[in-house]
Amino acid sequence: MRATTIHAPYDIRVEEVPDPRIQRPGDAVVRVMRSCICGSDLWAYRGEKAVEPGSRIGHEFLGMVMETGSEVTSVKPGQLVVAPFVWSDGVCDYCAEGLTTSCEHGGFWGDPGSDGGQGEAIRVPFADATLVRIPEELAPDTHDGDSRLLDAVLTLSDVMGTGHHAALGAGVRPGATVAVVGDGAVGLCAVLAAKRLGAERIIALGRHEARAAVARKFGATDVVPERGDDAVAVVQELTRGQGAHAVIEAVGTEQSMSTALRIARPGGAVGYVGVPHGSGNALDLRLMFDRNIAVRGGVAPVRTYIPELLPDVLDGTIDPSPVFDMTVDLDGVASGYGAMADRTALKVLIKP
Amino acid sequence: MRATTIHAPYDIRVEEVPDPRIQRPGDAVVRVMRSCICGSDLWAYRGEKAVEPGSRIGHEFLGMVMETGSEVTSVKPGQLVVAPFVWSDGVCDYCAEGLTTSCEHGGFWGDPGSDGGQGEAIRVPFADATLVRIPEELAPDTHDGDSRLLDAVLTLSDVMGTGHHAALGAGVRPGATVAVVGDGAVGLCAVLAAKRLGAERIIALGRHEARAAVARKFGATDVVPERGDDAVAVVQELTRGQGAHAVIEAVGTEQSMSTALRIARPGGAVGYVGVPHGSGNALDLRLMFDRNIAVRGGVAPVRTYIPELLPDVLDGTIDPSPVFDMTVDLDGVASGYGAMADRTALKVLIKP
Repeated sequence: MRATTIHAPYDIRVEEVPDPRIQRPGDAVVRVMRSCICGSDLWAYRGEKAVEPGSRIGHEFLGMVMETGSEVTSVKPGQLVVAPFVWSDGVCDYCAEGLTTSCEHGGFWGDPGSDGGQGEAIRVPFADATLVRIPEELAPDTHDGDSRLLDAVLTLSDVMGTGHHAALGAGVRPGATVAVVGDGAVGLCAVLAAKRLGAERIIALGRHEARAAVARKFGATDVVPERGDDAVAVVQELTRGQGAHAVIEAVGTEQSMSTALRIARPGGAVGYVGVPHGSGNALDLRLMFDRNIAVRGGVAPVRTYIPELLPDVLDGTIDPSPVFDMTVDLDGVASGYGAMADRTALKVLIKP
Repeated sequence: MRATTIHAPYDIRVEEVPDPRIQRPGDAVVRVMRSCICGSDLWAYRGEKAVEPGSRIGHEFLGMVMETGSEVTSVKPGQLVVAPFVWSDGVCDYCAEGLTTSCEHGGFWGDPGSDGGQGEAIRVPFADATLVRIPEELAPDTHDGDSRLLDAVLTLSDVMGTGHHAALGAGVRPGATVAVVGDGAVGLCAVLAAKRLGAERIIALGRHEARAAVARKFGATDVVPERGDDAVAVVQELTRGQGAHAVIEAVGTEQSMSTALRIARPGGAVGYVGVPHGSGNALDLRLMFDRNIAVRGGVAPVRTYIPELLPDVLDGTIDPSPVFDMTVDLDGVASGYGAMADRTALKVLIKP
């Protein structure tokens, strides 16, 4: 089969690799119908994260089960499933508590020995615990096939669940004023998550016009294009000098975290999901202490959130699919990375 | 009247100062019956916090109302009251939410223009919102006077409420495994607060034997005298390699925060109340991110906690009074600072 590999910074290839096969009784093999490129894939693409040359890449996918190991009971060949961006065993203490990202036997797609999501098929460990069924009617080649809905479900693999995690970390509750730092796909999904959780006012920080339009569609009531001190001043002005109850940091840089902390209302929280790339330098504990601002977040246990979010996606309560603004096939994956890296694309959908 | 002043590092004096008087209609004047010295007073004592020479000092007290301004309705002369370590107006947005430490008109005892708690009497702004009545029967010169109980109530001024805030920040809940870094009076009160909130296992980190004894009395199930890497290893061993659900950081140094983060269980939280003196350097955001460990705490809004904690103190459910292990009168205040600074006293009670 064909799958995406990364060999060096800016060197993304699609190559012939061995077909995935059942290796353990709990495995399933899934034919990938939808995958996509994540902002976090760009850290490796730009050389800011070291990778073994030839590594598989991609951690968001949904597709059709093709084969299952002897112990798999929850899914069978022909069924459609969506996967979270880490696999998990479903039985350890952490999985029992919903923190699937800390699973004692979990792993990340593309880790050595595993398949990546940006390919034709993938072996899924702990299929019973990892995969979540979605309606077969969504398949694009069926009578009721709804490609847009399938795209929306794909966001539960990562961005939408990650935005939801950020909103929970920030303590979004009905009536809250929320600020979202970062207009990438996760930041936009955090806007949507905040809206879904009942936020009354949602201030999106970002200067990219097309993204601001998506933010408004997702529920943003205000868009602040300023950055740094100016952004802080504008948010303070919008909030009677108090700041936002709940602030979401969805970038991971020093500036984004600094802004997030400074626009948080005393007693509030910063929910962060941006993979830390300098953001730790901005943690001003004295400011946090004086204002009782909590910092809470991290790698999102999206597997836990899929059962809660999926029904809202299927019935149209939320539609995260507008985060995809470019679609490629496997031959176009390298160009997709390029487009996301130079910010001409927000998030690239892959139809293998 | 006489009150404690600080003139320079290690230069604590008790001097004649003007008698406090009602300055605004919301003021009350309180005769101090009990005060004490806080670990945070030592930052000024040691010269690690700049102070105006001659400043008043002391922020924990209880006593008898002597006089009230024309607008004060909740207390009257002759009644006993306990005060939190900041005053607050009780009506601003933050007070309405219980975050009295962020009150728009609040202040800290000893701030320029205000009295300190370590004196014979004190002017209390916003008396209605700031003071909390306690039973007159507690007065030591009454038939039922109970000096120990009065000492216990005094801890609600700061240490006991601060320990409670730390426990809430750490997310202590029934059945939780809790670790407390720091065996000062706040750390010990945090042990008691964690026990009160239903913690099943409480691991106290500290090497001072007398303090360990208080920790055990307060509910600690394990005492870990090791520090740094060794302490982390021992706590991991005690918790099947997982760490504690709820970790309380009650020191404020880089080492204490580093230890706190490293012994927190994935998905857990560090509740911190140690005034940051280097602890911000230990905030390893990548560790927090990977393990979803929240950091939540700050200056404790103890005024909000007094109504909840006071009944438990009065009925004996909790007795924080063992944190006091030395008692002085005003003439002995300087020796009390010395004893706390060289750690021969845990916490010094002042009976003016």
